Amino acid sequence: MTKAVVLLSGGLDSAVTAYIAKSKGMDLYPLSFAYGQRHASKELESATKIAASLNKHEAHRFIHLQDTINVVLSSESSSLLKSSNLDPQTDGSDKGIPSTWVPQRNMLFLTLAFMYAESIEADHIYTGFNAVDYSGYPDCRPEFVAQATRALNLARKRFVKERHSILIETPIISMSKADIVKRGLQLEVPFQNTYSCYYGRDKSCGQCDSCRIRLEAFAANNIQDPIEYEVLVP
Amino acid sequence: MTKAVVLLSGGLDSAVTAYIAKSKGMDLYPLSFAYGQRHASKELESATKIAASLNKHEAHRFIHLQDTINVVLSSESSSLLKSSNLDPQTDGSDKGIPSTWVPQRNMLFLTLAFMYAESIEADHIYTGFNAVDYSGYPDCRPEFVAQATRALNLARKRFVKERHSILIETPIISMSKADIVKRGLQLEVPFQNTYSCYYGRDKSCGQCDSCRIRLEAFAANNIQDPIEYEVLVP
Repeated sequence: MTKAVVLLSGGLDSAVTAYIAKSKGMDLYPLSFAYGQRHASKELESATKIAASLNKHEAHRFIHLQDTINVVLSSESSSLLKSSNLDPQTDGSDKGIPSTWVPQRNMLFLTLAFMYAESIEADHIYTGFNAVDYSGYPDCRPEFVAQATRALNLARKRFVKERHSILIETPIISMSKADIVKRGLQLEVPFQNTYSCYYGRDKSCGQCDSCRIRLEAFAANNIQDPIEYEVLVP
Repeated sequence: MTKAVVLLSGGLDSAVTAYIAKSKGMDLYPLSFAYGQRHASKELESATKIAASLNKHEAHRFIHLQDTINVVLSSESSSLLKSSNLDPQTDGSDKGIPSTWVPQRNMLFLTLAFMYAESIEADHIYTGFNAVDYSGYPDCRPEFVAQATRALNLARKRFVKERHSILIETPIISMSKADIVKRGLQLEVPFQNTYSCYYGRDKSCGQCDSCRIRLEAFAANNIQDPIEYEVLVP
């Protein structure tokens, strides 16, 4: 079996990505990050359930990055995802770069994923990066992934010696959220174990951008989202 | 003044690099990393002294990466720099990639430096990367630095919006150790506050690769290295 590190956030995108990797017969090594996002505990709880549902090779590994990120990000620059007293935007995510963005978050995740892949000799890293619904995030675009792949491989012994590459797999990067849900339904992803709401409360708010995009994607598939919402959803 | 993050390891290369940045009138923000290297305490003590000697803008910041790195690197893959029961090589560093190498270490440092630069709006990151004496390290080469610069900028809001780049400055990347010492002498770098030995004991061993290269560089400049050695050095 081919080894693959899979980044699990607990959200819908990374869950579908993990099941796509599983469907390709990969030997999965799930990796999750806590980086001070306010929905961390709900996210990691969901990531744990998704990891447990995979036919994975190894224990799910967690990296806690809050302290590290706190050193480099001054309070002015800390984004909404890290803040507890500001409201995430609820007025559409298509107006440029969302305020929930953490600088270099994906490069940090990819760098640590490459270190892990190097240590276990995995040739693939699966990520749920998506450039469609959150097109404002510069580090979710295919051109970023391509350049990051080049830079991270140039830093590797085995690339220099034998041109061996580790590949960053982004199977859902160009899919709409509706298509991601559709693919997840085909693969029997346990959507009830995923979590998308920005607020991190027990039930999802149903009103933040993340909840709205998720609900629209289930509606487009004529399916009821199996998670619980605070408000009555269509 | 132009703001610059400067990576300080406590070694000779990063000290000379910091003084080069200082000579260009940069407003310096020193950043250091502890990543489980066995000479960590001596290195960081030296980095603190070098930072204090700079006319810097802000407090020296430290990031502790041991726990993070321990999660992703299995024991088999941990390198000599992290180990306490193995001897670093002492038989020359020109036989390929040194065993002291930590995978993706420099990408991890650069990613965190970019996060810091983003948060303080610095346009420059000074690093003491050197491709000459340690040419076996794939992540010290100019081509790696160029690709990393592209990838890290592609992840940035301000690059996407206004093509604003953060630059990774590598003023000594192509210099021999003798030339680095020469430049440091011109800039009055307090070499007595730097530390290069792999072993991390109070006095430097004088025999490991790092000590030997350092001693040869001072000898080439007809200068006595001001640090203390355990053995009688030429």
